Amino acid sequence: MSSAPAFSLDAWSRAHLTLVEVALSRWVTVEVLPGQSWGAPADLVQAMRYAVLDGGKRLRPLLVMAAFEAAAAPGDALGGSAALRAACAVELIHAYSLVHDDMPCMDNDVLRRGKPTVHVQFGESAALLAGDALQALAFELLTPADASVPLAVQARLCGLLARAAGSTGMAGGQAIDLASVGHALDEQALRHMHQLKTGALLQASVMLGAACGDASAQAQKALASYGQALGLAFQVVDDVLDVTADSATLGKTAGKDAEHGKPTYVSLMGLERSQCYAHDLLSQAHAALADSGLEHTAALAALADMVVQRSH
Amino acid sequence: MSSAPAFSLDAWSRAHLTLVEVALSRWVTVEVLPGQSWGAPADLVQAMRYAVLDGGKRLRPLLVMAAFEAAAAPGDALGGSAALRAACAVELIHAYSLVHDDMPCMDNDVLRRGKPTVHVQFGESAALLAGDALQALAFELLTPADASVPLAVQARLCGLLARAAGSTGMAGGQAIDLASVGHALDEQALRHMHQLKTGALLQASVMLGAACGDASAQAQKALASYGQALGLAFQVVDDVLDVTADSATLGKTAGKDAEHGKPTYVSLMGLERSQCYAHDLLSQAHAALADSGLEHTAALAALADMVVQRSH
Repeated sequence: MSSAPAFSLDAWSRAHLTLVEVALSRWVTVEVLPGQSWGAPADLVQAMRYAVLDGGKRLRPLLVMAAFEAAAAPGDALGGSAALRAACAVELIHAYSLVHDDMPCMDNDVLRRGKPTVHVQFGESAALLAGDALQALAFELLTPADASVPLAVQARLCGLLARAAGSTGMAGGQAIDLASVGHALDEQALRHMHQLKTGALLQASVMLGAACGDASAQAQKALASYGQALGLAFQVVDDVLDVTADSATLGKTAGKDAEHGKPTYVSLMGLERSQCYAHDLLSQAHAALADSGLEHTAALAALADMVVQRSH
Repeated sequence: MSSAPAFSLDAWSRAHLTLVEVALSRWVTVEVLPGQSWGAPADLVQAMRYAVLDGGKRLRPLLVMAAFEAAAAPGDALGGSAALRAACAVELIHAYSLVHDDMPCMDNDVLRRGKPTVHVQFGESAALLAGDALQALAFELLTPADASVPLAVQARLCGLLARAAGSTGMAGGQAIDLASVGHALDEQALRHMHQLKTGALLQASVMLGAACGDASAQAQKALASYGQALGLAFQVVDDVLDVTADSATLGKTAGKDAEHGKPTYVSLMGLERSQCYAHDLLSQAHAALADSGLEHTAALAALADMVVQRSH
């Protein structure tokens, strides 16, 4: 009989979150570069740090780390250093998107992670610039000058992240979302919108980790399926929580989607069918992990469970 | 006696601008990626194309191409393909910065290159997203999946561009600029602001071209000096033109800096000293080219002349 100890997502997450938080705090800073007499302006960095630090579930960084550990050979320290950079880079893209998404011309949200949003705290122009600078910083993190990440890996990571963030990924999904307010979307169009808006970056998190761990083609394909199912499930659950949870639990204003006439899975499928759909997607994610040929997928499996079973 | 034909910037620019315009039009588009059934949303791409195509002097792309041709071995077609991507990428970063800079929470400008600004034409949220997507697209261009650019070059280009665009470059300079409205800046602080705000991306254009051409360390150092002098000269001349030219010639609203109480070289040094300073910087740029050990620097020299002698 197998006597492998049960996997504890809680312990695994705590250890990895510490790495991520320390790295983010170190990298989002007033850095003075070699050959320059100045770093980034202090007030810009202050707004960037406010947007990134001390908040968020860090789901995307944890997905990067978990996918890396599933795909990597044991003890691959160089890959681990690349994965930590990729984990922070994807979180910077996520953080910048929240800053811009909260602005008055977009969702006009004043509360995020239980704190005033960046434009409320620092003003609109500072929020705009902090978001812009965070996107650039993501690519700075992926291209360290010290050769701690092989150049070929740097290039692969930049390519994955740029495509997940841009017009065929997150920004494209945001554009469809904006254009869809007050319009009826069918299920296929809604899924397409979410695959770009949130799915692309979640899936990219998994693929970034896989790229740092040099996964086989079979493993990459399975991890892409896992990432796609998880990305969709995340949004379905988000829509469910927007209806069932309150603002205090969510750490952001609840019920905004319905109020703004935004199409959601719940408005389209109803609450119960949306909950069933989320569980179907969870099963697909688990099945993809079983097909991956990888051994150490416990963290990825547990993260998928967490995404579907979370309360906020 | 030497009988080399005189260099014609006009003919050189026309040929290279055609390459750049065709490439931009091809790459800023509704692309359907392999394995995806969708491209970028059409209305987002429309705003992106409006921001990028049919306008602008394309100074930064021309600097990339000129630096590449100075640094490269003759007939380096692979490097030329990388340089064209870098030329377009740096223009996308420039274009996105203009879109965001024109928004109501920033400069609130309604006219750019003789056309309504993006947020006037498409709305604020579309302008915000188009800018965000253009920044990501710059890094997509630098990381083609078809191996037409060696991975090590891709990584180097992404690193250079990210640092020039981010908090220690363009976005950082914008933040200092915003914070400086109505404050007295001394000459050193003003120069620092402009080195970040416009200088970093102009200098990076030169270094991107040099990286595609695999320039020697001596050449890279000289080209960095050239790029720094040119970047400063560009801003000094910009400040001069804001006072001496009218809106029709500039293609944007003239006299805005003075009206907004923004510190400029002219407000600090006076008009005549600013004009002398621009010519000093031009001499520095020429001296750097002479020190580079490179032969084919005529285009770079002529571009520097154009920057200082332009009327808009």
